[in-house]
Amino acid sequence: MEQIGFGLIGAGVIGRVHARNVAARADAQLRWIVDIDPARGGELAAAYGARFTVSVDEMLADPAVQVVMIGSSTDVHEAHLLACVRAGKALLCEKPIADSLERARNCLDAARAANTIAAVGFNRRFDPQHLAVHDRVRAGEIGTVESIHIVSRAADAPQPAAAQRAGGMLREKGTHHYDLAYWLARSEPVEIYAAGGCLFDPGFATYGDVDTAALTLRFASGALATFSFSRRTAYGCDESIEVFGSKGMLQSRAPRPRSISLYQGGRVIDDGIDGHWYDRFASTYVAELDALIAAVRAGVAVEPTLVDGMRAQAIAEGAVESLTRGVPVQIANVWQA
Amino acid sequence: MEQIGFGLIGAGVIGRVHARNVAARADAQLRWIVDIDPARGGELAAAYGARFTVSVDEMLADPAVQVVMIGSSTDVHEAHLLACVRAGKALLCEKPIADSLERARNCLDAARAANTIAAVGFNRRFDPQHLAVHDRVRAGEIGTVESIHIVSRAADAPQPAAAQRAGGMLREKGTHHYDLAYWLARSEPVEIYAAGGCLFDPGFATYGDVDTAALTLRFASGALATFSFSRRTAYGCDESIEVFGSKGMLQSRAPRPRSISLYQGGRVIDDGIDGHWYDRFASTYVAELDALIAAVRAGVAVEPTLVDGMRAQAIAEGAVESLTRGVPVQIANVWQA
Amino acid sequence: MEQIGFGLIGAGVIGRVHARNVAARADAQLRWIVDIDPARGGELAAAYGARFTVSVDEMLADPAVQVVMIGSSTDVHEAHLLACVRAGKALLCEKPIADSLERARNCLDAARAANTIAAVGFNRRFDPQHLAVHDRVRAGEIGTVESIHIVSRAADAPQPAAAQRAGGMLREKGTHHYDLAYWLARSEPVEIYAAGGCLFDPGFATYGDVDTAALTLRFASGALATFSFSRRTAYGCDESIEVFGSKGMLQSRAPRPRSISLYQGGRVIDDGIDGHWYDRFASTYVAELDALIAAVRAGVAVEPTLVDGMRAQAIAEGAVESLTRGVPVQIANVWQA
Amino acid sequence: MEQIGFGLIGAGVIGRVHARNVAARADAQLRWIVDIDPARGGELAAAYGARFTVSVDEMLADPAVQVVMIGSSTDVHEAHLLACVRAGKALLCEKPIADSLERARNCLDAARAANTIAAVGFNRRFDPQHLAVHDRVRAGEIGTVESIHIVSRAADAPQPAAAQRAGGMLREKGTHHYDLAYWLARSEPVEIYAAGGCLFDPGFATYGDVDTAALTLRFASGALATFSFSRRTAYGCDESIEVFGSKGMLQSRAPRPRSISLYQGGRVIDDGIDGHWYDRFASTYVAELDALIAAVRAGVAVEPTLVDGMRAQAIAEGAVESLTRGVPVQIANVWQA
Repeated sequence: MEQIGFGLIGAGVIGRVHARNVAARADAQLRWIVDIDPARGGELAAAYGARFTVSVDEMLADPAVQVVMIGSSTDVHEAHLLACVRAGKALLCEKPIADSLERARNCLDAARAANTIAAVGFNRRFDPQHLAVHDRVRAGEIGTVESIHIVSRAADAPQPAAAQRAGGMLREKGTHHYDLAYWLARSEPVEIYAAGGCLFDPGFATYGDVDTAALTLRFASGALATFSFSRRTAYGCDESIEVFGSKGMLQSRAPRPRSISLYQGGRVIDDGIDGHWYDRFASTYVAELDALIAAVRAGVAVEPTLVDGMRAQAIAEGAVESLTRGVPVQIANVWQA
Repeated sequence: MEQIGFGLIGAGVIGRVHARNVAARADAQLRWIVDIDPARGGELAAAYGARFTVSVDEMLADPAVQVVMIGSSTDVHEAHLLACVRAGKALLCEKPIADSLERARNCLDAARAANTIAAVGFNRRFDPQHLAVHDRVRAGEIGTVESIHIVSRAADAPQPAAAQRAGGMLREKGTHHYDLAYWLARSEPVEIYAAGGCLFDPGFATYGDVDTAALTLRFASGALATFSFSRRTAYGCDESIEVFGSKGMLQSRAPRPRSISLYQGGRVIDDGIDGHWYDRFASTYVAELDALIAAVRAGVAVEPTLVDGMRAQAIAEGAVESLTRGVPVQIANVWQA
Repeated sequence: MEQIGFGLIGAGVIGRVHARNVAARADAQLRWIVDIDPARGGELAAAYGARFTVSVDEMLADPAVQVVMIGSSTDVHEAHLLACVRAGKALLCEKPIADSLERARNCLDAARAANTIAAVGFNRRFDPQHLAVHDRVRAGEIGTVESIHIVSRAADAPQPAAAQRAGGMLREKGTHHYDLAYWLARSEPVEIYAAGGCLFDPGFATYGDVDTAALTLRFASGALATFSFSRRTAYGCDESIEVFGSKGMLQSRAPRPRSISLYQGGRVIDDGIDGHWYDRFASTYVAELDALIAAVRAGVAVEPTLVDGMRAQAIAEGAVESLTRGVPVQIANVWQA
Repeated sequence: MEQIGFGLIGAGVIGRVHARNVAARADAQLRWIVDIDPARGGELAAAYGARFTVSVDEMLADPAVQVVMIGSSTDVHEAHLLACVRAGKALLCEKPIADSLERARNCLDAARAANTIAAVGFNRRFDPQHLAVHDRVRAGEIGTVESIHIVSRAADAPQPAAAQRAGGMLREKGTHHYDLAYWLARSEPVEIYAAGGCLFDPGFATYGDVDTAALTLRFASGALATFSFSRRTAYGCDESIEVFGSKGMLQSRAPRPRSISLYQGGRVIDDGIDGHWYDRFASTYVAELDALIAAVRAGVAVEPTLVDGMRAQAIAEGAVESLTRGVPVQIANVWQA
């Protein structure tokens, strides 16, 4: 089978994940790493036998590059995405699509006009458990979706300054989970309410951010999603979903890698949940790449789409506004029509 | 041991539970059943060898009655409670204390002035699991409480008309769970937001009620509680609590009465959760009575108190207002000083 | 409904359980307690409003006694059972039926000739979990039974001397579980092998007994049951069953009374299993009595029968012989024909 | 880091597993594949860039080969192992070491005399769960080991003829689990009793084999291990261990890859256990290789040793004899002194 050529923009944490996964495939070739930092980018390129450049245009000029992974910083997403569209490349863009809804819409319009195969990096959709729950909900196993509860608590908190550069918790962490909720409810979001505060690290408040939050999202169908977020736990990476429907309830719980129990005294002590997000979600990046490559080969669209990305981004903006104003916020539907 | 004499006002569902539990004890004597319906009240009295009367005063005039259980309809709670206070009886009043916060405050003031031993019927606090979680939280096992999630979903929905007479879901079901959240957080509630709708039975809307709701309660400490309510499930009585703290997380899950598993194909099929609220909570009414009798014997106050009752009732009023107005509502502290 | 009159022989541990359960029923009347010890028997009789006698015959002479529970010491079981048969009473006899297989057979023949309704006290069959597993196995849910594994470990070890008076572990504990295995396999036992030793208390060896054992029982169908016995655990009363069949596997696990979890560090700590046999099995004695009373009212036979009792007793004798001789022992079928 | 050169004898199922794992490492080089079938061996060699030969001697003559993996058929294990020893290579030999205890002893003596680093392929010891249980037992967490129960049931039965060529179930499957039991009990085995039969496929009987077995193994310490084996299940690869000790009980259960639950009706339906042995045990072959390479680099002995291999093989021979004769068999200690 002919290999599909890949270019990768951004040699940060997520860029290194994509580089490893693309390089490991027999059906793909990692041709270019692009980064503003030649040291870090060059090292990554060398590790996987790719070429390095600081120039997105040089990479795009390579006709063997069919797909570009955009893992650069958010402020240059729009420029990079539009360049890929103009160059006729398929792409996967990390979320958020751009640093404003207007720019995200601009990206969406351009990609549509060019009929670009464009995915957004919502890797959570490829979690084997979440995906199985989704497929079973779609198959009608629990009837009509009435409510959803999503817990997302990282093992370790980031530095407040770094967290704020990534948009704050309600955007950075939240976007993944608003998208999951939509994906499970399959109804457009109409209103969001966000409550939050700094329960353990006032450093987040310095940046206008929170370390703990509870959100309520209402969908057009009437279904309600609640979200419980924390920046850290004392027990590992806790991400779970509960979908309640008219005919039953489905759970995707935080997995426990080992099935060991100690019976002693009045207690049963089991090994706990995964400690690190990467242990939990490593397989999702591979599955996301599988889907992208299959779409490129078939020449068809791929989910999650730029529309999915914009929707979640619009919910995030609503959440931030709600947190600031202290009231529920209507979500302007900027991702359709 | 000398038996403590009991009078019971109200021979409805909850009255029958109390009658059975009082009558079964060696340390208590069920002396009177009071009800407006002689047929139903007389039958209950006969079943347990108690006297029947339609007159609260006749029952209160019996000097051997030391404790009164008030299980009448809410609109006469205040009158019954005040009469008990005047008659110098200890009492347990089912929630809500009265049909307005003003009347509840009136009850509270009267009981305080008379130094009455007065409990509110928040039986959930006596659930062995919830209680163990509470005690461990209090003992500091999970550090500072940061967030709480409470699921409450009954097995079967009531008739909308009956449900509305009981105050609607946010009052009837909610009061128990607002109290649980306070009890676990040990911080005064300051704000509530309620979202809800009729997801499966528009009949509730006819009465201004909802069948599904998601609520967010903020405490003075900054801790956040979320609530996920439904009027019915397709799988039994689902009530669970998760308390997340700085040093760990504690769960009180919906119990499964039988530990049976079938391994077959790609699945493991277990017996599910309790089908009926009474199966789940029968023991709580006995434990509640234990605590009341112990307090009466010792002549000391008993939890949950009328203050607990008023606080939860005030949160419920805030929840109803929030649902109506669509915004978070500050909770006026009417239960203190 | 007319009450059925009961006589109870034996005021020891099991006698007190039966006395409590019979006395608590509206459809039964506990008329007599018979015991060789007037102090202990008289006290029990007084507690439940029954008459006391040291004479089995005096009790049997009461025409209102329809059913006798035989909870005396094993060496007088035969005499008591035969007397009940002669007096035309229905009966439930605690296991073993008699202190030799010949005497047990004598009991069986007499009860058969008289068409006596006679049950053996294999209360484990009435454990809600074991019973549900049994019914599902019988319904064909796991196909043909191929192997069974039964764990039985008490929370606390008895005194070696007392244990030996009760027949030793392979008889006392074992009989219940051999019967369970037969009941699940529904095939006659043909061979047993017992290995065991004193792993923690050499005191048992003084009496020719063991504190730990592993047994293998072969059925005529070819199915194999293994048993893992211990006299004590460091974590409660551990009794569980696994039935493996051609179409699946069913487990009845040691129940955990509370569904509580603490997530902390790399561990999840749950509340453990029931600490005491009575907490685990209290309901079985009530259900056993339900079945007996229903059979007496209907005038039909009741399971587990004297044949069930003899079969398990024959397996136990084989187990003891196997332990002594160190080889598998063929089980002579003395319970049929 | 310098790469360690590997030669692999045998290009069957297990050979392909080893080839993949060696070839994937940066610290090892797969230099040779040896097989009697040039087509199958050549193909495997080509896939991983190794050289192919039908001659063990040609491979052993390569001075860059430091380690040999022996995955040939059992009848030539001895010849291959002795040749490796003579050639001064470290080795890992799949179990059994040889087709008789005498030949296995011959291998052991030769390897000892030459101070060869020699491992036996008991990959189960490297299962993360089993290993954690082992380490915790060794650390004294459950006190003295009193009994062990091991379940091993494959998802799908092999062809009877092929199974018999591999030595029959009590040798092929059993050897792994006898070794696990020894490893956990840390006491020498003294006696084994095996019961078994053809419960679902009489084809195994044609070859003197069984498809279902129950075994009891007694250790010098008095501890007892029971084993429940089946050739197939209707629900995946079921391998679990329970270790019962004086201070508690540890379980290593069959892992369930996904933590999904459906609550519906009176049931909770979870995703089941791993379907295939390779899914369950893939990581063990990598960990086994890690240990071997570390030992070769350090020039030290590696567990499981040839002594471990002989011990398990001696137990297996005892089990087969016990099955044939129908009595427990003393295990001659041929692996020590």
